[in-house]
Amino acid sequence: MSTYFVTGSSRGIGLALAGLLASKPDISKVFASARSETDSVKKLVSESNGKVTFVKLDVTSADSIKEAASQVGKALDGTGLDVLINNAGVMPFTPNGLETMNDLDEVFKINVTSVHNTTAAFLPLLKKGNLKKVINVSTTLGSIAKAQDFAVMPAPAYKITKAALNMLTVQYALSFAKEGFTFVALTPGWIKTDLGGSHADLSIEQGVNGVYDVVVRVNKEDNGKFFNIHVPGWENADGPNQYDGKEVSW
Amino acid sequence: MSTYFVTGSSRGIGLALAGLLASKPDISKVFASARSETDSVKKLVSESNGKVTFVKLDVTSADSIKEAASQVGKALDGTGLDVLINNAGVMPFTPNGLETMNDLDEVFKINVTSVHNTTAAFLPLLKKGNLKKVINVSTTLGSIAKAQDFAVMPAPAYKITKAALNMLTVQYALSFAKEGFTFVALTPGWIKTDLGGSHADLSIEQGVNGVYDVVVRVNKEDNGKFFNIHVPGWENADGPNQYDGKEVSW
Repeated sequence: MSTYFVTGSSRGIGLALAGLLASKPDISKVFASARSETDSVKKLVSESNGKVTFVKLDVTSADSIKEAASQVGKALDGTGLDVLINNAGVMPFTPNGLETMNDLDEVFKINVTSVHNTTAAFLPLLKKGNLKKVINVSTTLGSIAKAQDFAVMPAPAYKITKAALNMLTVQYALSFAKEGFTFVALTPGWIKTDLGGSHADLSIEQGVNGVYDVVVRVNKEDNGKFFNIHVPGWENADGPNQYDGKEVSW
Repeated sequence: MSTYFVTGSSRGIGLALAGLLASKPDISKVFASARSETDSVKKLVSESNGKVTFVKLDVTSADSIKEAASQVGKALDGTGLDVLINNAGVMPFTPNGLETMNDLDEVFKINVTSVHNTTAAFLPLLKKGNLKKVINVSTTLGSIAKAQDFAVMPAPAYKITKAALNMLTVQYALSFAKEGFTFVALTPGWIKTDLGGSHADLSIEQGVNGVYDVVVRVNKEDNGKFFNIHVPGWENADGPNQYDGKEVSW
């Protein structure tokens, strides 16, 4: 039986993923965190037969992170946390040209520093866990090698900060490899969420099942890698996205 | 005849590079910028026969950047700036483990956002220039693919922010390719400066000559690439650094 903590659970991938995790018989507890307990989170908790616990968390606040880690520690009552999924993030647009981008510091704080602070705060609980996995939700738009493919997407702060998140992931992987940890960056694909929009490639079910497969599959040999999800039929799709489950180049 | 603007010119690579540029007969003006006009900058200016102009610039201040761009625009008197070298940056250490890193936002502001703001402010002058080159001083420590090689260096904020700087460089390259720009990220190698320390591989002359060679050599075909400097004799050195002048993997 394993335990999960997910950030950014009020909507989109985080909400659907928390629901999917709660449906798995070998998962005993899912901590679904968000800035506030929205109606959708309340519904998730009430329908989970006690498996899902809401945790109030503003990932941009060090105090809030500390408070959340303390709450989870108490709930786990001496046992460890198995998997941390750093999913919270933002993708703002810069429609009037790269040189007008004015939100880089703010987006970095949310997409990178928050992941660092959350990971650091939950490390003591993760060290007591059996699986010792940290999954950082990244994006192929954060791949520097593939930047040309996504040049038309006017989301430079998202791309730049996700490249930084990838490096943060690798730094953690190198630092905690000896202790048996698995840190991976994962691209969930282009999913029909509020963030992805209605023209996205994948339904939320396809995307979240793909994410779940990677979360379960990865182990110590995958520490420090950057994975795509696998969606049957999308392995050799035209266009920038192929959901083949393989590593993505940095 | 061409004109250069260099940030972080009060010491290290920036100071030596400004001096080297001023010694070249085909370079007419070098704007050497720093937060304050140190004795070494004063010496550089006074020995340059009027070629080097000091420009007061705090790259973390949008107002200071605006003021510097305005001063350079007046000095160029309607002509353009040919080359911008974004060299200012910091490499703080995190000696007590990655999870104790507490300077990520601050280092990002200096190493990434400052480069963005400086580049954006100087773009109008660069568009009027003939060479249209922007050189961002990065580092192989910012290569995610090579992270394992540098795992022992306890400078995570530097590594993470330089990976982000590489993506920023590529975003600019893609945005301004059609206008004839050349944006490159460059690793100057491990140089005996205050930042590099006394155990570094290269003398400051070796390093700065290597940087100069790349600055002069790159053209539109190199837009969006990440280059190592070339130091004769170091092409196949043992250890993480080979100064072969080739591209560095992201």
